Amino acid sequence: MTLSDLQKQLIPRIEAELQAFINAQDFFETPLLKQMLVYHMGWMAGGSSGKRIRPLLCLLCTSAFGTDPKIALPGAMAVEFLHNFTLIHDDIEDSSQMRHGQPTLWSKWGVPQAINAGDALFSIAQMAVLGLSQTCDPSIAARGALRLNQVCLHLTSGQHLDIAFERDEKISLESYLAMVRGKTGALIALCGWLGGLAAQQDTHILDALYDFGINLGLAFQMLDDFLGIWGDPQVTGKSAASDILTHKKTLPIIFGLKHSEPFRSKWTKNNLSPYQIHELTRDLKTCGAQDYVKEQAQEFTYRAFKSLEFLFPRPNSYTKAIIELTENLLHRDF
Amino acid sequence: MTLSDLQKQLIPRIEAELQAFINAQDFFETPLLKQMLVYHMGWMAGGSSGKRIRPLLCLLCTSAFGTDPKIALPGAMAVEFLHNFTLIHDDIEDSSQMRHGQPTLWSKWGVPQAINAGDALFSIAQMAVLGLSQTCDPSIAARGALRLNQVCLHLTSGQHLDIAFERDEKISLESYLAMVRGKTGALIALCGWLGGLAAQQDTHILDALYDFGINLGLAFQMLDDFLGIWGDPQVTGKSAASDILTHKKTLPIIFGLKHSEPFRSKWTKNNLSPYQIHELTRDLKTCGAQDYVKEQAQEFTYRAFKSLEFLFPRPNSYTKAIIELTENLLHRDF
Repeated sequence: MTLSDLQKQLIPRIEAELQAFINAQDFFETPLLKQMLVYHMGWMAGGSSGKRIRPLLCLLCTSAFGTDPKIALPGAMAVEFLHNFTLIHDDIEDSSQMRHGQPTLWSKWGVPQAINAGDALFSIAQMAVLGLSQTCDPSIAARGALRLNQVCLHLTSGQHLDIAFERDEKISLESYLAMVRGKTGALIALCGWLGGLAAQQDTHILDALYDFGINLGLAFQMLDDFLGIWGDPQVTGKSAASDILTHKKTLPIIFGLKHSEPFRSKWTKNNLSPYQIHELTRDLKTCGAQDYVKEQAQEFTYRAFKSLEFLFPRPNSYTKAIIELTENLLHRDF
Repeated sequence: MTLSDLQKQLIPRIEAELQAFINAQDFFETPLLKQMLVYHMGWMAGGSSGKRIRPLLCLLCTSAFGTDPKIALPGAMAVEFLHNFTLIHDDIEDSSQMRHGQPTLWSKWGVPQAINAGDALFSIAQMAVLGLSQTCDPSIAARGALRLNQVCLHLTSGQHLDIAFERDEKISLESYLAMVRGKTGALIALCGWLGGLAAQQDTHILDALYDFGINLGLAFQMLDDFLGIWGDPQVTGKSAASDILTHKKTLPIIFGLKHSEPFRSKWTKNNLSPYQIHELTRDLKTCGAQDYVKEQAQEFTYRAFKSLEFLFPRPNSYTKAIIELTENLLHRDF
């Protein structure tokens, strides 16, 4: 079976389990609270959801070790609920008004109700992972829940840095890596880790699954940062050099602020003209930001694939699907 | 040992464990995130914390069943961290600028960082309860964590109603009870429940501990609502009828809005004069709100003590301390 076949098989199942889990909860006579979560998850008529890549990765990892993915479903649900909880709060923290083509929760129901609905979804993610008590055993569930919360603390540390970066004049490359590791890497790392845990894998395998996710997360984000400046607008769907226009502090920009005086002096200006944006993009290339980000993304891509080689020396249709999924996420046009 | 002796013995221990737990966490190179939690918990020089009544109640319940309270410490820490997490988010949702005589987290570090710090503390509460794996066993830990999250969902449903009440014109007495049950009762109920769980009590005992907490929470809140209008300013430290002045939708006011046309017509006005407040207070008394709230508070107080009688038929110093604590919380001046 190819990745595409497995997606067709697993994603509707994940979706059904996620919906059933929300439906099984007691919302104590507050139907609107439930409705807010249903809306955010993309289940309203005309709604749109994410791609459910995280729970898919979790189940593929379990399967790759020859274990029925069914027993990892509580972990798969937990990572998806957790991801969605972080989106609810991130959208408030970033003042983002739209997500998946629909108004964000806070812009529809106000900040207080949206913070609170995020908290509800966080609790639901916790309950989901504890379902490993039934499919595996209570010690696996307790271990999975503990790791999930260590990851949450890592996530909040990444988000803390990201919020702080908005005001920081000088951001070190180390801080940037720490931010991405927490904000993007840790949750992807948890997916494989929980998949391996459900498949009763040893600690050194779980560690490698975790490293794989961290490296995948870092490579993915760096590629995203690269494409935010040098991506083809026809492919990315954004305007050229969009991250310069929005003053987003991505890796090439942090590099440029550190290494290019011309870039630093021009970047702070508002309402940049197309010509100024062209100049800034050129400054970034001149100071070596383009090569640097490309090399960094390649380095972490290499590490992610190295982890996969170590984890899955003998290929089967599941390991092939994990490799294909990783390629899809990382082998986008430079 | 009296309640006072037990408080002197247990509260410093709880405080030390809470601090040690925060210190043991990996904050991934974000010292300010940790500092925000240390500040909120009241541990900065000159800081001020809550009374730690919830973890105390948890440990007293464990002790009352003849079990060393040490084994319930993970549960006790969890309820206190959970309570403090809810305060961080509640303060944002209510726009409260002060708490325990110091600026709230959001008013000091901004809403985005405060939402995020609350999320971090929520994760820490989860990790704390999972410590029951060590002091009891993983199945107790998984059961405790599941219940804690069901309580969190109840809390968010209560908070959802409370936020909605700010705009609602008509609030039913049933909705009010549902709000208080979630917002105040559920977490107090969890304290005794986790204490009993650590002491390996049967389900019917755990249920009674939970009912006790719900009734204690309801009685406490109704008393608070009563005192917010008819309390002696010299005792409450607030101005007379302060809840009328601030348009807070408490039980007597909800009753008055439903049953008194004079009250309803005057209450919406802003900048009420002392005479108008006096009139409104009188309207509440005339329509029966004072008697109603008193009776309701007495009813739930009675139920709380009934639960205690059932739970602890043979008195020992711990059960006496629980009764004394309950009396301190409920037998305030009508």
